[in-house]
Amino acid sequence: MKQIIKPPFFEIGVKNFVYGDAVLEMAMAADEAAYRYDIDVLFIAPYTEIRRVAKNTTRLVILAPYMDILRPGRGMADVLPEAIQDAGARGVVINHCERPMSLPAIRQTIERANELDLLSFACADTIAEARAIAQLHPDIINPEPSDLIGTGSTSEIDYVQQSIHAVKTIYPDILVEQAAGITTGSQVYNLIYAGAEGVGAASGIFLAEDPITMMREMVSSVRRAYNDLQIVQ
Amino acid sequence: MKQIIKPPFFEIGVKNFVYGDAVLEMAMAADEAAYRYDIDVLFIAPYTEIRRVAKNTTRLVILAPYMDILRPGRGMADVLPEAIQDAGARGVVINHCERPMSLPAIRQTIERANELDLLSFACADTIAEARAIAQLHPDIINPEPSDLIGTGSTSEIDYVQQSIHAVKTIYPDILVEQAAGITTGSQVYNLIYAGAEGVGAASGIFLAEDPITMMREMVSSVRRAYNDLQIVQ
Amino acid sequence: MKQIIKPPFFEIGVKNFVYGDAVLEMAMAADEAAYRYDIDVLFIAPYTEIRRVAKNTTRLVILAPYMDILRPGRGMADVLPEAIQDAGARGVVINHCERPMSLPAIRQTIERANELDLLSFACADTIAEARAIAQLHPDIINPEPSDLIGTGSTSEIDYVQQSIHAVKTIYPDILVEQAAGITTGSQVYNLIYAGAEGVGAASGIFLAEDPITMMREMVSSVRRAYNDLQIVQ
Amino acid sequence: MKQIIKPPFFEIGVKNFVYGDAVLEMAMAADEAAYRYDIDVLFIAPYTEIRRVAKNTTRLVILAPYMDILRPGRGMADVLPEAIQDAGARGVVINHCERPMSLPAIRQTIERANELDLLSFACADTIAEARAIAQLHPDIINPEPSDLIGTGSTSEIDYVQQSIHAVKTIYPDILVEQAAGITTGSQVYNLIYAGAEGVGAASGIFLAEDPITMMREMVSSVRRAYNDLQIVQ
Repeated sequence: MKQIIKPPFFEIGVKNFVYGDAVLEMAMAADEAAYRYDIDVLFIAPYTEIRRVAKNTTRLVILAPYMDILRPGRGMADVLPEAIQDAGARGVVINHCERPMSLPAIRQTIERANELDLLSFACADTIAEARAIAQLHPDIINPEPSDLIGTGSTSEIDYVQQSIHAVKTIYPDILVEQAAGITTGSQVYNLIYAGAEGVGAASGIFLAEDPITMMREMVSSVRRAYNDLQIVQ
Repeated sequence: MKQIIKPPFFEIGVKNFVYGDAVLEMAMAADEAAYRYDIDVLFIAPYTEIRRVAKNTTRLVILAPYMDILRPGRGMADVLPEAIQDAGARGVVINHCERPMSLPAIRQTIERANELDLLSFACADTIAEARAIAQLHPDIINPEPSDLIGTGSTSEIDYVQQSIHAVKTIYPDILVEQAAGITTGSQVYNLIYAGAEGVGAASGIFLAEDPITMMREMVSSVRRAYNDLQIVQ
Repeated sequence: MKQIIKPPFFEIGVKNFVYGDAVLEMAMAADEAAYRYDIDVLFIAPYTEIRRVAKNTTRLVILAPYMDILRPGRGMADVLPEAIQDAGARGVVINHCERPMSLPAIRQTIERANELDLLSFACADTIAEARAIAQLHPDIINPEPSDLIGTGSTSEIDYVQQSIHAVKTIYPDILVEQAAGITTGSQVYNLIYAGAEGVGAASGIFLAEDPITMMREMVSSVRRAYNDLQIVQ
Repeated sequence: MKQIIKPPFFEIGVKNFVYGDAVLEMAMAADEAAYRYDIDVLFIAPYTEIRRVAKNTTRLVILAPYMDILRPGRGMADVLPEAIQDAGARGVVINHCERPMSLPAIRQTIERANELDLLSFACADTIAEARAIAQLHPDIINPEPSDLIGTGSTSEIDYVQQSIHAVKTIYPDILVEQAAGITTGSQVYNLIYAGAEGVGAASGIFLAEDPITMMREMVSSVRRAYNDLQIVQ
């Protein structure tokens, strides 16, 4: 059965900022933070670390950074959906801007993920692209606006609302994550407080002076913002 | 230090024929066969299995099926050389026909492998391509002739000698593997007896009725042919 | 100013079925048919023939089969939008299934086409993809269903209505073309009669015994179906 | 029959620096310079301009910037070898660094060019890559060293001799062109005087204040250097 993600969630993109034991350490600390703050934490791990991270964590939702759509057989260097799932991935990133995919490939990867009950986490560069991908009905959309990265919080908050609205009018059950250049816990707080269903970070964590502390601060900010929101409501 | 491969060696390409535990079982059986017959066995494992295979074997020489040339940092879905090495790979496949690479990428991947003391195992489709790649001085060349696959042993033996000669006249220290549609132990025997420095198989093993038995037969055939050769000499 | 296309229109895809003078002959005959039947005819010409076809026709709407988004400068082998326009193209094909594009590339090519007043003619493999691309607001969508090619007319007519509806609910001004394996004039007639705004053919024309006669039959069928429709209404 | 190129020759790469009439003007001026100085001039023209340039020049050797290897048929947006030849190209650029190709594609494109008697003009980034491509026996190699661009003339002249030697020891009949950041006529003179068989320029011409004058100066420098060399010998 497909993993259910409860918003507000947090997402950590390892990319290739670290490798080996450093991935495992971050994963175990994130697993602990997920428990402590009772927050669903998505963890995008390099292929080589998926199995070890899965073995050493219980609450993290591990995603592979990409997969191909082949079936078991040939395909030297292709990433088999069954293989990432067997290793412990519960989902897959689709169309990240560092790995753009053709439209048929996006569609077919979402279909293949559904077949295996893998979460499909699709990226988009603009609100128009988010609407386009929403038509293919992935589970989560990350409409990361390349051009907004690093701008002030006000425009980001407008963008949160616009992007959520754009996606939800197509399929209300698609979760919408915000991940535009997040580098502090207070940014995470503000986005969740403004209505974001999830927030994600990669370089904001791994290029911080103390990545694990930064990750904890961000996960705890998701919880605080959510609690504060419920008081208000 | 770069792993030294002693010919005659044997190479197993997992590709995506199996995944998960089946990869580990094959790897452990191959490790045992490598010991029993005292043969270097290269094992090309999917990214997700490299670490677990490395942890559970001691004599197998694990290769990744591909790597990118990036440095630690961004690159969602890229394969970091340091990451595959940390997981336990001792080398990398370059330019497999199921993952063709541009000429600059081939050159840069060989350079990056050398930087990390990773073995570079480069594939070629024809003798002309084998000569071309030999100029870039990888450690091993597999001049697998797409058009010879499945033909009789006589022409294969001509090809063995031609391809070895073509590569060795450029750099005598490049090892030359033969891997054209090998499906039986006796083919392995004949190729080694004809002078091949290494033999490899993928579908010939994994599509066999009993893949582990087939692998053992092939590894033992390398040893027998090599012993018989030394009696003759 | 962007060329205005008046439905019902017809589209001819030369692809690489013919080259040289045979392209020009087809173009000149299509230009004549466009006049005779007073139908807008889109003509997708190989890059090498755009200028000559433009010089020898007056009513054809010439499209390039692809373009890059670069600006004048470097880019050996890239296709400059300004260059195809200068040669006589009035639009460009985007995301043909024989040349799939990433989602950001589709978006940016539509934007670049708009900047130069070039028509954007975007292809999709399924109705879901047609909806996705519609969000990026090209001028024309060709939701060619790979899996419907060659099936009977009933399902095609259902598909016509579904695909038109899917696109028009997003942007009513996008024109929707049908081009699923059209090989006869009567298929063209039926599709237009069923409400298609445009019909296209490639192999159906160029693999016919007499391509020019087949093209004429198809263009005249557009006119006949349209006239018959108006009598009914 | 394949065009014969007589060294020392000159090569002009239009890339996308200009388009439309500006390409034709340069081509006609280059054609005149080719006659005046009795020098073979290769002219790499955008696809859209090949036919018009061919019609308006008689001595230029026109090359297409790339071609695919398909046969007449499908292939929207592919570049058919027969189509560029019919339009007037006498050869094709292969593996330019702005359009890198896989090794099998390089080999197959050279074979396809030979089949049609089209000149194969292959690019390489380093001397090692030049040796690699030389094994596939194209007609001309341009071993343009990305890292040498803009350095002083001494090292360039060393490079000329090294790259010619590297290629000629593999196949003595391959012509070797030098094209590393040429921006003046005196650089052209020095390279030819140092033994280069051909010299090429792209941005050095098209970003000059007066491109046509610069082109003439370069072509005339080829002639002067060649004449001066013959006096010495």
